[in-house]
Amino acid sequence: MTSPLINRRLVLAERPQGVPEPRHFRRDDVSLPGLAEGEFLVRNLCLSVDPAQRGWVNAGANYSQPVAIGAVMRALAVGQVVDSRHPQIARGDYFYGWFGWQDYCVATPAAVLCSFDPAHGSPSLALGVYGIPGITAYLALTDLGRPKAGETVVVSTAAGAVGSIVGQIARRLGCRVIGITGSAEKVQQCCAQFGYSAAINYRHGLEAAQLAEVCPQGVDVFFDNTSGAIADSVWPLLNIGGRVVQCGTAAVSTWSPPPMMANRHRDVLVKRLSHQGFIIFDHAARFPGVIAQLASWVAEGSLVFREDIREGLDVAPEALAALYRGENHGKMVIRL
Amino acid sequence: MTSPLINRRLVLAERPQGVPEPRHFRRDDVSLPGLAEGEFLVRNLCLSVDPAQRGWVNAGANYSQPVAIGAVMRALAVGQVVDSRHPQIARGDYFYGWFGWQDYCVATPAAVLCSFDPAHGSPSLALGVYGIPGITAYLALTDLGRPKAGETVVVSTAAGAVGSIVGQIARRLGCRVIGITGSAEKVQQCCAQFGYSAAINYRHGLEAAQLAEVCPQGVDVFFDNTSGAIADSVWPLLNIGGRVVQCGTAAVSTWSPPPMMANRHRDVLVKRLSHQGFIIFDHAARFPGVIAQLASWVAEGSLVFREDIREGLDVAPEALAALYRGENHGKMVIRL
Repeated sequence: MTSPLINRRLVLAERPQGVPEPRHFRRDDVSLPGLAEGEFLVRNLCLSVDPAQRGWVNAGANYSQPVAIGAVMRALAVGQVVDSRHPQIARGDYFYGWFGWQDYCVATPAAVLCSFDPAHGSPSLALGVYGIPGITAYLALTDLGRPKAGETVVVSTAAGAVGSIVGQIARRLGCRVIGITGSAEKVQQCCAQFGYSAAINYRHGLEAAQLAEVCPQGVDVFFDNTSGAIADSVWPLLNIGGRVVQCGTAAVSTWSPPPMMANRHRDVLVKRLSHQGFIIFDHAARFPGVIAQLASWVAEGSLVFREDIREGLDVAPEALAALYRGENHGKMVIRL
Repeated sequence: MTSPLINRRLVLAERPQGVPEPRHFRRDDVSLPGLAEGEFLVRNLCLSVDPAQRGWVNAGANYSQPVAIGAVMRALAVGQVVDSRHPQIARGDYFYGWFGWQDYCVATPAAVLCSFDPAHGSPSLALGVYGIPGITAYLALTDLGRPKAGETVVVSTAAGAVGSIVGQIARRLGCRVIGITGSAEKVQQCCAQFGYSAAINYRHGLEAAQLAEVCPQGVDVFFDNTSGAIADSVWPLLNIGGRVVQCGTAAVSTWSPPPMMANRHRDVLVKRLSHQGFIIFDHAARFPGVIAQLASWVAEGSLVFREDIREGLDVAPEALAALYRGENHGKMVIRL
C-alpha cells in the first residue's frame, strides 16, 4: 500500500481589486483523491504566469467566470500524464491546458488545450512561443491586424510574450514595426532581438511628436495590449483604413467604473477604422496548424523567444505581481 | 446672341465651429462661363441637405478637404444635363453627384456618383432611398453589421434618412429592431412605418433599465449615427461578438478637442466586439447593384421612404440648421 500523493495548491484567499498581490493567495495542500472513470492525473512541469490572470480573479465583466475564493488559481500549465482512467489518454503524454497553480491536476479532456510535442524543445515553450502568447500573436495579428508589406505596425508591451512575437511576425511580413515598452533594456531588446525598427520607453512619457517621428507614414496597425494612456497617444496617428487589435488592457487596473478617455468615434468613422477584440480561446481548432508554423520559424532560427523562468510553486504569486510591475524578462514561467 | 445664364450660388461666408447656421452662408450669383472641352452643364433639380455637411465645413479631421471660404457649399444634388462638350455625356441625361448648392454646375465626370433613372420615380428619390442614405443603410448594415435572423439591432437616428432604411432592412433580415429617436411622433413612425419592434425617445433620457427592457437578449448590432450619450448607453448592452457600425456622429458638435467618454476597450476585448467606420464614397462601384435591390423593394411596396421637401435655393441653410435640431420629417431635400 502506497501513501496518498500530496497535492500542493495555491488557492485564491481574497478577491483583489485590480492587480493581485501575494496576500490574495494562500497554500492549501490536500491529498489527491483517486481517479474516476474518464479522468487522468497530470503532473505539472511548468506553470504559466499571465497578464490575463488579473481578469480571472477580478469581479468585473470578463470572458470567463471569476475564480472562486478558496479555489485553485486558474492558470495554464504544461504537464505529463502520470495515471489515466481515460481510454484515449496514455501515461507519459504531454499536455498544455488548464491545470492550475498546483503540483497535480485531476483532469478531463475538457481541461486540455492541445498536446505538446517534446521534440519542439523544453516543456516551458508550450506556455510561450507554442502556447497562448505565440498563437495569440500569430492569429490576432494576421486575422484582425491584416498587415501588408510596407505598412507601419505599432505594438504595445512590445517586448512581452505576445508583443515580441507580434513584432517579429510583422517584420517578417515586410512591415515597419514600432515598439512601445517600459525600460531602456527592453527598448534595446526590441531593436536588437525582435526586429523592431524603433522602440520607445513609455515611462519617459509618450509625446505625440516623438511617436510621429518614428511613424512618419502614420500607423496602419495598432496591436494594443495596454489601452489607457498609450492607446490615447497612438490612436490619433492611425491612417485611413487602420486596424486596432485589442489584445489586452494591461495599463488599466480597474474597469468598474470604466475610466474616461477621449472619444475616438469620429476617427473610427472618417478613417474607416476597424477596432476588434481578440480572445484566443475562440480559435482552439486552429492551434495545431499555428504551432507547426511557429515551430518551423523557430527551427530555422528566425523567431526568437525569451523566457523568465522562476523556480518553485510558492514564487508564483510574487511572479505575477512582478509581471504587472514590468519586471519580467520574457514569458514568465514557474518550473516545478 | 443669347444673354449669359446667371448661376445663383450659396457660398460659405464664414467657417462655423460646430453646427452651420444661415449666417455662415451667403448668396453669390455669377454668370456662367462657357464650357471647356470635356465639361458639361448640369441644371440642378433637387439639392441634398445632409448631416455630413457639418463635417465638410468644419476645420477638423474629416474624410475630405473642408469647403473653402467663398466656395459653393458642397452638396449632393440631382440634375439634368442641359449642355455638353463631353463625348459620353448627352443633353437630357440625369445624374446624381457633387453639384453643390447652386442652380447650375459646370461638371466633369469626376463630379458624378451615378446616373439616375427617372423610371424609378421623382428625382428627389435619387438623393434619398436611391442615393447616399439608402445605399449607406444597405451596405453599412450588411457589410459591417452582418445581422443574422433573431439578433437584436439598435439604430440611432432611427427615423432619419439612413436609419429608417436600416430599420426596415434589418427587420426584413429577421432581426428584432430597436430605434432611438428624438420625438414622440418619430417613435410612432418607427413602429408604424419602419418596422421597429420598439423605439425610445432619447430626449426623455436614455435609462439603462429602459434600454435593457426593450433589448432583453442584449444588442448584437448597434448601427450608430450619433456617438455621444446615446452610444454611452447602448455599448454596455452589447453581446459577445457584437458589431458597432459607426455611420455618423451627429450627437457630438465639435471634435477639437474630442469629448471624453467611458473607455470601452475592455468590452471590445472580452466581448470580441467589432467597431468599424463606414464612408459610402469608398464603395461607388457597388451603387448600381444596390440601387436595383432597393428599387425592387420599393416597387413591391415593402420599403417606404419619407421626404421633407422644401422649395427654393435660399431655404437650404435654414433647412440644414433645422436638420440638426431634429425638425425634419424624412430626407431633407431642396427643390429648385
